[in-house]
Amino acid sequence: MELCPKFEEAFRLLGKRWVGIIIRVLEAGPMRFNEMAEQVPEISKKMLTERLKDLEEQGMVKREVVPETPVRITYRLTDKGEAITPALAEVQKWADEWVEKTGC
Amino acid sequence: MELCPKFEEAFRLLGKRWVGIIIRVLEAGPMRFNEMAEQVPEISKKMLTERLKDLEEQGMVKREVVPETPVRITYRLTDKGEAITPALAEVQKWADEWVEKTGC
Repeated sequence: MELCPKFEEAFRLLGKRWVGIIIRVLEAGPMRFNEMAEQVPEISKKMLTERLKDLEEQGMVKREVVPETPVRITYRLTDKGEAITPALAEVQKWADEWVEKTGC
Repeated sequence: MELCPKFEEAFRLLGKRWVGIIIRVLEAGPMRFNEMAEQVPEISKKMLTERLKDLEEQGMVKREVVPETPVRITYRLTDKGEAITPALAEVQKWADEWVEKTGC
């Protein structure tokens, strides 16, 4: 019974629209913004930008500037971001079996 | 990438204040309202009532009337409610390690 706020904070973050999906996309490895946008065409670029910022603020995603010409910017999961993936998989398994909802 | 709405719906529910805790308390078995209230003294009775209703609506908790004199009312996890517990444990493990937050 000790962990309520941490616990709920985690779920609130993960319950934000697209956050789980973005993390799953980044499990494949570092990716440029446009590559991510292609993988999840349903997200607007504005929303993707916003969610990547949320995830950066939470320390789950890192934005990296690769000093090439032209400069290349990639996003990758941090250790904290990687560490959530088993929990995402468990929730997904549960949602698959139990959450009724049409669409997607 | 198929499961976004289910997935997020699940997290939205679990991200509601006290929901995770209530499920964990009920893992011990069916319980009366007042027993639950004792286990989590930080929740007001009003809030506990509200969250139990949310969980009933989601089919995760069942309210049962035991026909004794006086009538006894208990709450228990349904199969759907039981099924979320491995996911809660994974999120808790992650939050424990990674979510900074003072208090509780």
